[in-house]
Amino acid sequence: MIRLESYLSGRWRSGKGEGRAFVDPSTGAALGVVDASGLDIGAGIAHAREAGGAALRAMTFAERGALLRKTADVLAANRARYAEIAAVNCGNTAVDAAIDIDGGVGTLKVYARLGEKLGAARMLIEPGSEQLAKENVFRAAHVWTTRPGVAIHINAFNFPAWGLWEKAAVALLAGVPVVAKPASPTAWLSYEMARDVIAANVLPPGALSLLCGAADGLLDCVGPMDGIAFTGSAHTASMLRRHACVLDRAPRLNVEADSINATILGPDVGEGSDLDALFRREVVKALSVKAGQMCTNIRRILAPAARVEATVAALSAELARLVVGNPAEAEVRVGPLVHVEARDEALEKLAVLGREARAAAGGGMPAQVRGADPERGAFLAPTLLVADDADRARALHEVEVFGPVATVIPYRDLDHAIALAAAGGGSLVASLFSDDPEIGRKAVTGLAPAHGRVMAIDSSVGKAHTGHAIVMPQCVHGGPGRAGGGEELGGVRALRFYMQRSAVQGSPGLLAKLQAEAAEAVM
Amino acid sequence: MIRLESYLSGRWRSGKGEGRAFVDPSTGAALGVVDASGLDIGAGIAHAREAGGAALRAMTFAERGALLRKTADVLAANRARYAEIAAVNCGNTAVDAAIDIDGGVGTLKVYARLGEKLGAARMLIEPGSEQLAKENVFRAAHVWTTRPGVAIHINAFNFPAWGLWEKAAVALLAGVPVVAKPASPTAWLSYEMARDVIAANVLPPGALSLLCGAADGLLDCVGPMDGIAFTGSAHTASMLRRHACVLDRAPRLNVEADSINATILGPDVGEGSDLDALFRREVVKALSVKAGQMCTNIRRILAPAARVEATVAALSAELARLVVGNPAEAEVRVGPLVHVEARDEALEKLAVLGREARAAAGGGMPAQVRGADPERGAFLAPTLLVADDADRARALHEVEVFGPVATVIPYRDLDHAIALAAAGGGSLVASLFSDDPEIGRKAVTGLAPAHGRVMAIDSSVGKAHTGHAIVMPQCVHGGPGRAGGGEELGGVRALRFYMQRSAVQGSPGLLAKLQAEAAEAVM
Repeated sequence: MIRLESYLSGRWRSGKGEGRAFVDPSTGAALGVVDASGLDIGAGIAHAREAGGAALRAMTFAERGALLRKTADVLAANRARYAEIAAVNCGNTAVDAAIDIDGGVGTLKVYARLGEKLGAARMLIEPGSEQLAKENVFRAAHVWTTRPGVAIHINAFNFPAWGLWEKAAVALLAGVPVVAKPASPTAWLSYEMARDVIAANVLPPGALSLLCGAADGLLDCVGPMDGIAFTGSAHTASMLRRHACVLDRAPRLNVEADSINATILGPDVGEGSDLDALFRREVVKALSVKAGQMCTNIRRILAPAARVEATVAALSAELARLVVGNPAEAEVRVGPLVHVEARDEALEKLAVLGREARAAAGGGMPAQVRGADPERGAFLAPTLLVADDADRARALHEVEVFGPVATVIPYRDLDHAIALAAAGGGSLVASLFSDDPEIGRKAVTGLAPAHGRVMAIDSSVGKAHTGHAIVMPQCVHGGPGRAGGGEELGGVRALRFYMQRSAVQGSPGLLAKLQAEAAEAVM
Repeated sequence: MIRLESYLSGRWRSGKGEGRAFVDPSTGAALGVVDASGLDIGAGIAHAREAGGAALRAMTFAERGALLRKTADVLAANRARYAEIAAVNCGNTAVDAAIDIDGGVGTLKVYARLGEKLGAARMLIEPGSEQLAKENVFRAAHVWTTRPGVAIHINAFNFPAWGLWEKAAVALLAGVPVVAKPASPTAWLSYEMARDVIAANVLPPGALSLLCGAADGLLDCVGPMDGIAFTGSAHTASMLRRHACVLDRAPRLNVEADSINATILGPDVGEGSDLDALFRREVVKALSVKAGQMCTNIRRILAPAARVEATVAALSAELARLVVGNPAEAEVRVGPLVHVEARDEALEKLAVLGREARAAAGGGMPAQVRGADPERGAFLAPTLLVADDADRARALHEVEVFGPVATVIPYRDLDHAIALAAAGGGSLVASLFSDDPEIGRKAVTGLAPAHGRVMAIDSSVGKAHTGHAIVMPQCVHGGPGRAGGGEELGGVRALRFYMQRSAVQGSPGLLAKLQAEAAEAVM
C-alpha cells in the first residue's frame, strides 16, 4: 500500500487525513491511498508563482526546451515501471499504456524540439508589421510575452501520463510554472513520474508542483494572471467556472470536456473495399483501446442507411473476437474501466441510450472476463448500438457512455451526416472515410465549425493516418460547445494560453530591435 | 423628445414601458426616452442566428467586406447629423465626436478592405502544414470557419458610434450576425446610425439588430456558439460572467474593462526637450479629449522623481488654459461627463484618490463653465493629482476616476517604473517617451506581459504617432487582468473570436483543395 504525497514549496508532503484508496480496477484490490488534506496549497502556489516563475522567465525558449528534453529522458529511462503501474492501476493493456506513457514522453520531445527551434529568445513576435503613420516613422507589431502567473492543471483520470506532460510541456516552454493535480483514481502514475523528474533535479525550483488528493482550496489561490487548464467532465468544468475566485479574479480557463464525437462512412465507400476495412478498424479501436475511455473516442458511427446492416454485421463479428479482461493476460485487448463506480455509471447511461438504440453487440457487463473477477472488476463489454431513427434521437447526441460504447446511426446523404455530427453540440473530433475528393472537401468545411479537429481518410492515406482518437501535438486539441470550448497543443499555438499578446507601436528602429530579440511565430 | 425603438426580427419595435430618459449632460435637459420592455428578445436573437447567420455565411469575405463599405458610405453621408447628436447627448466637442464617429466609419473601412483582400473565400487557413506520417501521405493544416451563432455586443456609453461599428464590422466580416445593445444614456447616436443603415437596406435580413433599453432577458437567450463582446465596467463584467446561462452554456465572452493605464516619461528625457513637450501634449489630451472618458486613457503619469516638480508645474499651466463647458461653444476643449450621476461618482472616487495624492490642478467641479449650468451640467475640472509615495499607494493603481483625471507618480529608475505600471494589475495600454533605444527595448519587453498595447515614442516618431488612447483597428485592443482579459481588433486577428479553429488531417490532395478554397491568414 503506497501513500501518495504532494510536492509543494519544494518538498514532498504527506496529507494529514485518512485519504482515499485507489484500486486495481481488474480486481477491485486496494493499491494505495491518496491524500492532500491539511497541506498549505496557497503557499505552494505562491512558491511556484514566484520562484518557479522567475526562474523560468529568465530562461530562453531553447533552455526551457532543454528542460523538457531532460524530463523526457528521465521518464524514458523508467518506462518499464510506469507500464506496470498503468496495467495494475489504470487497467491498461500494453497498447493502452503506450498511448499514455509514450504519448506523454513524445509530446515532451516535440515541445523540446520547438524550444530548440525558437532558440535564444524569451519573447515571440508575429511576422510582419503595419505602418500606422503617413510617413514610415511609426509602425505596429505584435509580440507575445510570458504571463507572470502559474499554470494550474487539473487532469483527467484516463491519461495520468500524457495528460500531465502534454499540459506541463507547453506551460514550461512558455515559461510558466506548473501546479498539476492528477485525478485521484490514477494519480499513482503521475506521482511516480513527477517523483523521478524531481529526484533527477532537472527542473528549477518551483517549476513543477504536484497535488495528489482532493483539490479543496486549490482555486482559492488563483490569481488573474494564472491559467487553469482542465480536462474532464462538463459537470466539473461547470463547477470550476462557478468558483467564486474564478469569477472574481478571471484567470484564463481552458476546458476540454468529453464530447460525442462522430465518424462518417462516406456514401461512396463500397462494401468490402479497403477503405471500408480501414473504417471498421478505427471503430474496433474505439471499442477496445483504453476500454473506450478517451475523450476523443468515436461515439457515433454515421453510416449510409443502406450500409447500416452490413456494417453492423461486420463490426459485430470483429468485436466478438476481442478478449476482455485483466491486462496482465497477454491476449486481453479490452481492459476494465477505471473503477466499478465508473462501470455502474456507464451501465446507467447505457440504459438511457437503450431507449433510442438497440444493442447489436455487448450491451452490459461481459459474460466472460479473462483473468479477473467479472463482478469486482470494472468491465464493460464492447458495445455496438444501432439507432433506427437518427432524427428523433436526442440522447445519442448528448449522453456519453465513457467506455467501449458507440452507436451506428443511419444517414440519408452527406448534408444529413454533417448535420447529425453537428447535433453533438460541438465535439473534439470528427472523421470521414471517403475516396471522393469533393465529398472530402465538403465534409471538412461542413464539419469544421462544430469540431476542433477533422480527420479525412482516403485510400491514399491508408493505414498511415494517426487515428481518430489520437491527439497529435502538432494539431490543436479541443472543441467548441459541449467539448468545452478549449484549445490545447497545436505546436507553437499552444503557447498562446500562457502568454500575452501585445501590440507594440513605435519607430521602425524599435521594432527592428524587438524582431532581432524575439522568435518569429504564427500563433 | 425622441423615443428610441429597437430593431428585432426585422422590424423597429417600441418598448411597452415608461422607459428611461436620456439627457443633454451640459444642461441636464431631457432629450428622449429609451425603452425595450416587453419586447421578444428571444425571437429577435433566434431570427438573427438563423436568417442573419445563414445569409452571412453564404457570402464570401469580399461580399461581406462590400457590406461594410456600403455601411460606411451610408454613415459618412449622414455625418453632420451624428455630430450634432454627439454634442447634445454625449457632451462631445468636435474633436471628441470625430474620434467616435470617424473612428467608427474608419474601422468599418479598414475591415471592408480586409474583406476585399481575403477575397472570394468563406474560410481561413493558416500558412503551412505539417507532415504527420512517415511518408508524405498524411498532413495537418489549421482552418478557421464561421461559428453558427450570434454576436451579442454590449457597448459602453462613451463610444456610441465607434463601439457599435468596431465590434459589428468584425462580426459581420466573420459572417456572424450582430445583436448590439448600446448603453442607454447615449443610445441615441447608435440608434440613428443603425436606423440609417437599416433604411438603406445594405445588410441582409437578420444581420444587424439593435436593442435600445435595459438588457433584461438578453443573456437568457445566449447559446454555446454565440459570442458576447462586452465593453464597460469590471462590475458589469462580473455580472455577465455570473449569469446562469453564460455559466451553463459557456458562450465565448470577451471583456474590455476600464484599466488604470500608465504613461512613462523616460529617465533620459530632458526638461524642455521636444520629447518632453510631446509627452505633456499627450497628458493634456488625456485630461481634455472626451472629458477623459476613454477606457484607454492615461490615469497614471510615471515621471522620474527629480522631474516631478517641473512636470507638474508645466502641465498645470497648460491645463489652466483649457476651457470647460458646453461643447456648443467653439472654445470649449473639455465637455461634460455623461451625466451628473457619473460626475458624482467621479467626485467620490476622487476623494478616495485624495488620500494618496494631492491635487495640483482641478480636483472637483470647475469654478467656471462656459455656456452651461455648472451645477446641472455634469462637469469635472481637468484634474492633475500628485502622489508623493509611489510604493505605498494602492488606490492610485486600483481606482479609476472615469473623467479628466490623472496622477503624477514619481519613480526611481526604469525597473521601478515598469513595476509601478504593472501594479495596475493588467491594463489596456502603456506608453513610454524616450530617445534611448535600450530604454525603449527594455520598457516594451517589461511592460508587455501586463498590457495589451505598448506605445513607445521617440523623437523620430514625433507627432506622427496615433496617440496613447486611440485604438487602431490594425492593433489588438484589450488587456490582461483588471482590463478584462479580452482582445478585439488587430486586423484579421479580430476574426478569431467569431470563428472556430480546426485541425484538418488528411491527404496532401485534400489539403491542397482547402488551401485553394480558403484565404491564408495569420490570426
